[in-house]
Amino acid sequence: MKISLLLTGNELMTGDTIDSNSAYLAQSLKDLTLVPYIKKVVGDDLNLLVSSIKELAAVSDVLVVNGGLGPTVDDLTAQALAQAIDSPLQQNAQAMEKLEAWAERRGFVITKSNLKQTELPAACEVIDNPRGSAMGFRCVHDGCLIMCTPGVPSEFKPMVEAHLLPLIRAHGQLDIISEITRIRLFGITESGLQDTVDSEFPDWPAEVELGFRVQMPVIEVKLATVGEQARSLNTLWTEKFCARFSDYIIGRDSTRLTEALNAALLNNGLTLTTAESCTGGLIAAGITSEAGASRVFEAGYIVYSNDIKQRTLGVSAASLTTHGAVSEAVVREMVDGALSRSGADIALAISGIAGPDGGTDEKPVGTVWMAWGRQGAISARRFFFPVPRIAFQKTAAAIAMDLVRREVLGLPTDVDYFSELKKKRA
Amino acid sequence: MKISLLLTGNELMTGDTIDSNSAYLAQSLKDLTLVPYIKKVVGDDLNLLVSSIKELAAVSDVLVVNGGLGPTVDDLTAQALAQAIDSPLQQNAQAMEKLEAWAERRGFVITKSNLKQTELPAACEVIDNPRGSAMGFRCVHDGCLIMCTPGVPSEFKPMVEAHLLPLIRAHGQLDIISEITRIRLFGITESGLQDTVDSEFPDWPAEVELGFRVQMPVIEVKLATVGEQARSLNTLWTEKFCARFSDYIIGRDSTRLTEALNAALLNNGLTLTTAESCTGGLIAAGITSEAGASRVFEAGYIVYSNDIKQRTLGVSAASLTTHGAVSEAVVREMVDGALSRSGADIALAISGIAGPDGGTDEKPVGTVWMAWGRQGAISARRFFFPVPRIAFQKTAAAIAMDLVRREVLGLPTDVDYFSELKKKRA
Repeated sequence: MKISLLLTGNELMTGDTIDSNSAYLAQSLKDLTLVPYIKKVVGDDLNLLVSSIKELAAVSDVLVVNGGLGPTVDDLTAQALAQAIDSPLQQNAQAMEKLEAWAERRGFVITKSNLKQTELPAACEVIDNPRGSAMGFRCVHDGCLIMCTPGVPSEFKPMVEAHLLPLIRAHGQLDIISEITRIRLFGITESGLQDTVDSEFPDWPAEVELGFRVQMPVIEVKLATVGEQARSLNTLWTEKFCARFSDYIIGRDSTRLTEALNAALLNNGLTLTTAESCTGGLIAAGITSEAGASRVFEAGYIVYSNDIKQRTLGVSAASLTTHGAVSEAVVREMVDGALSRSGADIALAISGIAGPDGGTDEKPVGTVWMAWGRQGAISARRFFFPVPRIAFQKTAAAIAMDLVRREVLGLPTDVDYFSELKKKRA
Repeated sequence: MKISLLLTGNELMTGDTIDSNSAYLAQSLKDLTLVPYIKKVVGDDLNLLVSSIKELAAVSDVLVVNGGLGPTVDDLTAQALAQAIDSPLQQNAQAMEKLEAWAERRGFVITKSNLKQTELPAACEVIDNPRGSAMGFRCVHDGCLIMCTPGVPSEFKPMVEAHLLPLIRAHGQLDIISEITRIRLFGITESGLQDTVDSEFPDWPAEVELGFRVQMPVIEVKLATVGEQARSLNTLWTEKFCARFSDYIIGRDSTRLTEALNAALLNNGLTLTTAESCTGGLIAAGITSEAGASRVFEAGYIVYSNDIKQRTLGVSAASLTTHGAVSEAVVREMVDGALSRSGADIALAISGIAGPDGGTDEKPVGTVWMAWGRQGAISARRFFFPVPRIAFQKTAAAIAMDLVRREVLGLPTDVDYFSELKKKRA
């Protein structure tokens, strides 16, 4: 079933108003397993409205027109529909009755402008708008159900559940079985996923549609299946997908990386502390952006200079001199210092060169060392992210959080993050 | 001149992603005094893309296609354009060169999926995308300038000013005298600005168009003037605007709040340290997101629990017991402790109830205390932001940074932030 939308209003074209109605309708249509087919947005232009209604009605089973029902001269929807379906405007008795009741309830006088709102194409019936004076209206033209609705979100949205969905359901005799699974991954890109699926699953069935959405820093993969076998097909290929990409999966549905990390800590009764240099508090801010963070996080140290690394965390001058601030020795000492000072169970430390300045031949901008672990069981890894400063900080923070999540869950921490992006270095 | 937009992506149709690109483009087109003619949105459907490109190109002078340039199978724009204008896909040498340079800069391997991104219709030239691997491309077909652009907002938006507007201007032989000033403000909303201008500047001239754009946490105001007198009119009304709103202005053009804060510190030869409870590192992360932060920032303390407030910063048990963690006494002691431990010139401390839990009748969720200053000259203020957790943290962090910026610049720190919102709530 094809459902199209036509939105009208100059304010939508100038970018002064962001349309939220169409996203609301699209989300509601998911309950009927429907996705809109075409969305078109035009200004208050009669000829363009008439041609757009004709064009969309010709290729759709349902057309929802939104906006242009108001009392002013730039509200042209009724007139445009009248021309498009060749059905003259006339005063609609039901609309008049509802307008009178609306005015009565509010103690308003019906103005000449209001009366314009009761003049509808002869072929139309009213769709009730309990919140305003602009009635909706509908007709079926050449097999397409056309519904005209008010643009004011507070009037439109209640009409979706109350009237639009039932009318669509009835018109389409809907009976589709569908199954959707959403999986969230970290550490692999859209193209890395697509290439792997292409090369390793040559028999991936067309009925299981793969969709990708980047929700920085994670990727959301959707497996959508329609048809008789939807559920079993979806289950089977979700299992295969999860088995192949288990190294990268952090959860289902809307799981955030910070949420997954905090849940892992909480479920294992552990607390975490952070010692950040190049990420400057970004990791701690991520952890504490989650409600309930106080159960897993008490203290964080931002040690941006060498002097502060020594004074706050007891990093040795010798290590700083011999190995430099971006070194395995220093991040290990940062973990030690953070553990002993905070009393936390696990510490995470990070030190790197975010750029744009500060790089050397041996340690170019983008170099970063991370260490994590418990007293006496500390691990460390070096990474290289030669990307702009903000991207470097976000990537490094996300990987550091994922390493702790893995450590806590007993998963391998030698995972090959974003391997498809890395050039083989000599 | 008629400019149409074609947006593509299943995620736009399902309502999972709200399109902000088209509003951004529409706002930018105002500089050329242009308003988009038709906007059409479709999913990743080849036939629909081909027919939509043909339809829109036939009735428009310029067509901007947005989205579908990625490396995966559901990215169909190049293929659709090739069919629509009957120009076969072939590897574009310029695109290949740019992709190689992009991969080299980042140390990435070019995958098979990336290579797909260099296959463009033979009739097309590349539009540079400095932020990503998906090149834009353009051609003129039957008099219509068609430009295909990436859907990722952080890649699309810089391309608008750098490439799209000049190409549109050249295609349309637009020769408009115009003057544009962009001013950035913090602490006042769009409607607060508009209402004040309406009531206090009844003679505001129609030739000086005011535009607003929210660039969280700041507001960007654009004064756009067209016509013979553009420059002098723009200068005059920019002066009036700046005089009225000086309390809120942080800079011109693209100034960020963190950038303004760091510049204020650097220009005054001062260093800052942070002691954060409810913002959990967000303030320090903001400061260190700016290049060169090490010249003004060395140390930050994230003291999420009462125990850590005492142990790390020497906050007294008496203050915590008598006044609670969210109190003037405690944030003042946090400033004291941070100053003495870090050796910084100025400290900023913050403690509040981010929610959703932890509120009381006396201190409901949204209550926050901030203190800032130098040894012996500490100020404090209480605020109340009854908004969801993330919004609370971002608002509190931004106001705290603005207070330090004001302190350093000798501006009043009793500014009435977002006062127009409070009046509405009252």
